[in-house]
Order: sequence, then structure tokens, then C-alpha cells
Amino acid sequence: MSLARVQFFSISLDGFGTGEGLSLEEPFGHAGERLHEWMFLTRWWRKMVGESGGSSGIDDAFLRLHDQRIGAELMGAGKYGPPGWHEDPEWKGWWGPNPPFHTPVFVLTHHPRESIEMEGGTTFHFVTDGIDSALARAREAAGGQDVKLVGGANAGQQYLAAGLVEEMQLNVAPLLLGGGERLFENVGADLRLEQNRVVHTPEVTHIQYLLSRRLID
Amino acid sequence: MSLARVQFFSISLDGFGTGEGLSLEEPFGHAGERLHEWMFLTRWWRKMVGESGGSSGIDDAFLRLHDQRIGAELMGAGKYGPPGWHEDPEWKGWWGPNPPFHTPVFVLTHHPRESIEMEGGTTFHFVTDGIDSALARAREAAGGQDVKLVGGANAGQQYLAAGLVEEMQLNVAPLLLGGGERLFENVGADLRLEQNRVVHTPEVTHIQYLLSRRLID
Repeated sequence: MSLARVQFFSISLDGFGTGEGLSLEEPFGHAGERLHEWMFLTRWWRKMVGESGGSSGIDDAFLRLHDQRIGAELMGAGKYGPPGWHEDPEWKGWWGPNPPFHTPVFVLTHHPRESIEMEGGTTFHFVTDGIDSALARAREAAGGQDVKLVGGANAGQQYLAAGLVEEMQLNVAPLLLGGGERLFENVGADLRLEQNRVVHTPEVTHIQYLLSRRLID
Repeated sequence: MSLARVQFFSISLDGFGTGEGLSLEEPFGHAGERLHEWMFLTRWWRKMVGESGGSSGIDDAFLRLHDQRIGAELMGAGKYGPPGWHEDPEWKGWWGPNPPFHTPVFVLTHHPRESIEMEGGTTFHFVTDGIDSALARAREAAGGQDVKLVGGANAGQQYLAAGLVEEMQLNVAPLLLGGGERLFENVGADLRLEQNRVVHTPEVTHIQYLLSRRLID
């Protein structure tokens, strides 16, 4: 079975993919928008939120590239909504009527829910039987293209620990959060990483790793 | 007061500066030599251990540069010897009669000991009254040159938390350790980091940060 790609996952230098105290008002908790400040400076972002201007350099180019050849996305429950979103039958994610995914998105959850078709090609499917099942369904939906793991940190941990990630594009932001959820926690030490590409701007360092399970130490 | 530089600190992608189970036989515990494999490939290293050959690329150049303008070094107790080294009155560090520091080295410890003069300009001084005192003494000994914090992770944490580090050169090795001691733990979140320089080879990514205490969030 083909594996997933952790794509464009932003972490702090101390390794946190999100802060503490996630809520409806603060999707990233005390981290606020700090992990993504580099992104807000780009033309890609400005255009997405209906503004003009923004930088057209490396960070912008990376953002334009990062959705290519993606046929489906995987998402943890913690990324889809604030704690307790499953108690709100009307919750349809953070992203408004036209989410920026434009593919089927498979949301890991313990709470069954009917699929939700949004504008622009995004459909949220809710998977209650685990990460293997979600990946299998996403692979099928992707129709030969890649499956992207969009977050959050907990879902990333699970897929990494299971050896189901083959490529990982990290954005290391130059800041410390001091708390929150780390991407690399409960993952173990038996993954073999190859550092495949490093690109940086003054705002952030993008590192791409290729992964395989370590067979012989 | 001038501050210290964390120089050439190697960490795993999951943030560990050393592994678990440190001992006389395994100075880095279960990490073994994995954090420093990139270094063993260089001409600089080969020469230091009396061998010929080795690479002369970026990693080698970095190693040649990293001791320039260093007048004194700071070292945590955990870096100077294995657990319990203070019970051995003959312990003089890991590095043989001619350690690779060639400056005064101020070792943080709870156990007073007479200074030890080694060959090649290294003198170990043992400081029992805390990190501020050790830095003050190192600054004085450095005679206007920089003070380098050579490790380990715990000493790094303390100096970072106290806001006493102004520059940090990290080598991020493409591997996961899954356990050990992280550099960025108990450090808090109120340091402002500027990503100043990123250089990489296939083996490792070198990132230099400039630090200042965050005054206004």
C-alpha cells in the first residue's frame, strides 16, 4: 500500500505543531498565529483571503507547489474543529463554505457523522475505524495521486508511529512555544529519515525528509 | 554583561541533545554516535583523531570555523563525565590528556574540585555557585573573546531559560531518538529568535539563531 505524505506541517523550533488551550477562538491555542506568520506574508495567502499584495518569493512558491498531485487529505479530529466539535451537528470545519482542500478529506474521529459536501470540491468524510482504514479510503479516493496528511500533531504522531508516512515537509518557525502538542512524541525511534531538501527564507526553514521504517539498526 | 553562545549543538529532529541511559561506555546513551555521524565524516575530525582523509566540504568548514574567537567554554556536569563522575577523584573528562577545547572550561557542578590544568591550553574549573557565576568567570577568562556553551542539554536549558544566550548554532541531524534530554525543555516561550543563517549538507542542517528576550509579545 502506498503511504501518506505529511505536507507543509509547521512546527516551532521546540517541536510543537500547536499550542496549549485550543478553543473556538484560538484554534492553535496560545501559539496564536505565530507558527504561520511566514505564510500570511505571501501572495498565495493574500489571494486566498481575497486581498492583493504579498511576497512572491520562496515561501510563496512553496505554498503554490504544496497541493500539487494531492488526491485526498487525511485530518485528525483536533484539526477539524475545537474540542467538542462533534457535539455540534452544524460544525463544518474552520474554513467556511469553500475550504482550501478541494479534494475528499478523511477526518479521524470517534463519532460517526454523515459526509459533508462543501463548495469547491472538498468533501469531509468521517472515519471511525482507525488510521489504517482512513488511509486506505483516502488512497482509493485519491485515484493514483498522493494522500496528504494535513494535521494535526496527534494524527501526525499516529501515522508516523505506524510507519505510514513516506515524505514529510516541515516548516520550522524560529520561535519557541514552550508547550502544546509536539509532532515527534510517541513516535519511537525506528524510522529512518533522509534529509532530502532544505530551503529557507528569513522567516522559516523548509526541510523535506523521506522516511522508511528502520529495518536494521 | 555579554552573553554566551550555544555553539555547535547537535540535536535530533525530535529535539534531543543526548539519549537515555548515559554511562561511561555510552556517553550519549542510546543515541550512540548517531547525532555526530556527520562530523565523523569530515577531515577536521579525522585529523583530530590522528587519521587522514575525510570530507572537506561544508560540514568540515563549519567545524573549522566554530572555535574561532572563543575565549572560554561553559560545560554542564552531564557533559563533563558519566553519572557519578564526581565520586572519582581521578576523572579528568572524556577527552584524554589534550582535550579539544584549548581554553579555560568552566564546569557546572554541585561538588567542589580543584582546577585541573590539561595539555594544550585547556583548564577545567569547577563552579558550584550557579550559572550566573560560571558565565561571569568565563567572560573574565575569555579576555574579550566569546564564551561558548559546549553542552550538555541540561546546561543549555538553564542558560536559555535565564536569557543568557545570544547566539545558537544548531546542527539538526535527520533522525529520531524518541527519548533522552531535549535542549528546548523548561525553557519557556519568551525568547525572541531570529533565524540568521541556514546551511545544509545531505547529512545535517546547520541553523544559526540570534536570541533576545521577548519584551513585548
